[in-house]
Amino acid sequence: MQEYRYDGDINNGKHYDEIVEADRSELLTRQFKLIDSEIPVVIVISGMVGSGKSEIINLLNEWMDTRFIETHVHRPPSDEEADRPYFWKYWRRLPGEGETGLFLGSWYTQPWLDHIDGSISKKKYLSRLQDIVRFEELLAADGTLIIKIRLELTEKQQIKRIKATKNRPAYSWRMSADDMDNGYPFEKKKKLADEMMEFTDLPHAPWFRVDASQPRRRNLSVMHLLTTFFDENLKRGGPDLSGIERPNGFLPSKDFMAEMDLTPSIDRPDYTVQMEKLRKKIFKNVWKAHQNKRSLVCVFEGADAAGKGGSIRRLIRAVDARLFRVIQIAAPKGREKTTHYLHRFWRRIPRAGFVTIYDRSWYGRVLVERVEGFATEEEWKRAYAEINQFEKELTDAGVVVLKFWLEISADEQLKRFKAREVTEHKKFKITDDDWRNREKRTEYQSAINDMVERTSTDYAPWHLIPAEDKKFARVEVLRLVHDALKKMK
Amino acid sequence: MQEYRYDGDINNGKHYDEIVEADRSELLTRQFKLIDSEIPVVIVISGMVGSGKSEIINLLNEWMDTRFIETHVHRPPSDEEADRPYFWKYWRRLPGEGETGLFLGSWYTQPWLDHIDGSISKKKYLSRLQDIVRFEELLAADGTLIIKIRLELTEKQQIKRIKATKNRPAYSWRMSADDMDNGYPFEKKKKLADEMMEFTDLPHAPWFRVDASQPRRRNLSVMHLLTTFFDENLKRGGPDLSGIERPNGFLPSKDFMAEMDLTPSIDRPDYTVQMEKLRKKIFKNVWKAHQNKRSLVCVFEGADAAGKGGSIRRLIRAVDARLFRVIQIAAPKGREKTTHYLHRFWRRIPRAGFVTIYDRSWYGRVLVERVEGFATEEEWKRAYAEINQFEKELTDAGVVVLKFWLEISADEQLKRFKAREVTEHKKFKITDDDWRNREKRTEYQSAINDMVERTSTDYAPWHLIPAEDKKFARVEVLRLVHDALKKMK
Repeated sequence: MQEYRYDGDINNGKHYDEIVEADRSELLTRQFKLIDSEIPVVIVISGMVGSGKSEIINLLNEWMDTRFIETHVHRPPSDEEADRPYFWKYWRRLPGEGETGLFLGSWYTQPWLDHIDGSISKKKYLSRLQDIVRFEELLAADGTLIIKIRLELTEKQQIKRIKATKNRPAYSWRMSADDMDNGYPFEKKKKLADEMMEFTDLPHAPWFRVDASQPRRRNLSVMHLLTTFFDENLKRGGPDLSGIERPNGFLPSKDFMAEMDLTPSIDRPDYTVQMEKLRKKIFKNVWKAHQNKRSLVCVFEGADAAGKGGSIRRLIRAVDARLFRVIQIAAPKGREKTTHYLHRFWRRIPRAGFVTIYDRSWYGRVLVERVEGFATEEEWKRAYAEINQFEKELTDAGVVVLKFWLEISADEQLKRFKAREVTEHKKFKITDDDWRNREKRTEYQSAINDMVERTSTDYAPWHLIPAEDKKFARVEVLRLVHDALKKMK
Repeated sequence: MQEYRYDGDINNGKHYDEIVEADRSELLTRQFKLIDSEIPVVIVISGMVGSGKSEIINLLNEWMDTRFIETHVHRPPSDEEADRPYFWKYWRRLPGEGETGLFLGSWYTQPWLDHIDGSISKKKYLSRLQDIVRFEELLAADGTLIIKIRLELTEKQQIKRIKATKNRPAYSWRMSADDMDNGYPFEKKKKLADEMMEFTDLPHAPWFRVDASQPRRRNLSVMHLLTTFFDENLKRGGPDLSGIERPNGFLPSKDFMAEMDLTPSIDRPDYTVQMEKLRKKIFKNVWKAHQNKRSLVCVFEGADAAGKGGSIRRLIRAVDARLFRVIQIAAPKGREKTTHYLHRFWRRIPRAGFVTIYDRSWYGRVLVERVEGFATEEEWKRAYAEINQFEKELTDAGVVVLKFWLEISADEQLKRFKAREVTEHKKFKITDDDWRNREKRTEYQSAINDMVERTSTDYAPWHLIPAEDKKFARVEVLRLVHDALKKMK
């Protein structure tokens, strides 16, 4: 872990102000270059009590152009946040292109506090740090600059600083959550912080220690550190990704699609009976899940015309409209994008207690975006791990994730395409894209096989559903939903 | 108020299903036309206990394409919502272009419940209905279709329906907030509902009564009502605005700008002393306001190069960075827009207890958008009332709104433009637009005069600040902020 120190001469007040005024413009021009380059920036400010974190936050807002900065302070989660996975709180606050997110208290704060007060085990703590590493890796790989600064004092300096603060009434009520003392001896706390930083100090998200014993030197150190850091990254054209393992050339997957048996079917009377039975049970169990604040996420993917829409319609018939939501997010057009592809999905995660149905999903990254070349090879290869992590965050928060792949044969697909073209209210469902995708069936099949192999986790496995017979597929979907709801109790 | 009734023959189950299947496609094609025309739709479903509101919500999700529908149910406000003006909860849920928002429980619910249980006076109730009228007017004028449906039963039918529900355990726990009985006699409640509907039944947001005594007829009535309503509106190309008063040709405003005395100035020593004094007081009072959950909104508008940025920098020096946020939203480019212009600002309203600083604001509508022709004459003329209403919502919620206009002479502006062109970190501040705007000074002056005259309300007056001397303007701003904070206590 690196230390950063401004070594210039700071004689007196006058001199300091001059340095600030001159060097501020250096920092500001770097900020404007970052804005021009549409690079998002995350700055984490951390440090001991009395080290001047909030002074630094104020100064950065003053030195840089504050219109492109958003400052975030650790606060207990709002009820909307508490009802969702841990990282949701941060995803909704991430800076967009050219923006800077200034975090005083960050994703580190909660695990840190939980660790300090002993409410989580060491093992759990390390696993949460591991989640943080993955989170920062994902942001960096997508182009976000991350810099983490820790302001440091010796024990003696800290005691002096705290005493001084207590005598100034304007400041005394400003203690924030991570300022709390927890009765830990200074040295022990410092050791724990060092451990945490060591674990999470990575080339794409480095920690820097800054000596905070002299406020003016501290301020200039932070200013120069940021200027240098931005400069290096601008020269490189983005974050230093040398520490991120590149997705390795991967082994061929099993041919799941070829091995699927598409023949299963169900006759009409049996279908009617089963659907009615399942509907009633699901209706009741979704309400129970709602009362227990348990959520269900259903992901529908499948071949074009495999009957995703019809299956979804049958499923929602079984759920009170107050408790479900169907989300369809169109694939991004071409390579245009302004935020991480998972951002769109993170943002829309429902509160605890609801059923969310995705008509196509984040898997677009490894399907259409891969096949059509909208994502680079490195991007889609990286996506498998990112998606697994995303679904892990969901399931960690108690959400059950059900993923359905609805499959039909090429012949059946052709039949359905033709039928669609003659039915008035289905015409809108068939586009040139569908015909084009059909020609790329081989590429799609191989992308699907890779997806199934790489993202079938024990917490969120794929369910491959033969949909040659629509009725059979619909019953299967309801059956799996019902099984999942039953297990939730 | 109109009634709507499907008069077709409904013999038996078989026949009903056939009608549904056939007529559903009529509704669906209308929905797709609305999507093509990028028209947002708001459907409010209201009705007595037992009238089948949630059944209707489910059916609409099934009949229409649910991917473009979002269903919203009345729930007690989350803490994030409770901390903001009443309508924020609904602004964040408004449908975008081509989307449908289905509201079971809506902006009517809370005033209605408060009225029923006597927690607000009749006068207050009517004023809240008046706010609703303005809210719907604003949405409709911007192109949103609004239809409000009330499902009705006789007292006898209702008693029967409730009894039946109680015997079905799967349904018994589904009582929602607006289902509550409140011990009101049926007839009295009905009379109150009639009053409410009469008050808010307008051509651009009509109420329709639907007889809910026979579920199947009720369902088909709603289906046909919507199909007809969408059809009429599609033919018209948007909502029926005949009931919305057109902004009248308005009288010339006072020439506020010409009458401003731009000579006031302050000398350096006095400036330093005053700024230091004000800064300390503001710092303390913002923290107090935070603890009391009181918010301050500061709007900075002004001539180009009048020193908005500099004044904002001095102001934020006086506020803990944890408690303020500077928001700059660029003017929309050309006529492109996807949501109501106020939407961008509504969305970003901070929670109670913070200072939000707008570097340019919603006044862009009546300034740059007016002068450059990005808004039509009707649009910007309507905007004065809309803005006044928006600021009323803010102040009703306890937010103090401070609006500053910083003014300089044409000569001083020219001097500053030229100076900017030679200072490295200020170059980015001067663009071709600035020079162009300068040529339109006369048009801008007249737009400013109209703005000051029409949006200086007693709850949110304009403060015209002579900024020929930058230091004077900065002190003025801090002084006004300090005065406002003092009054908050």
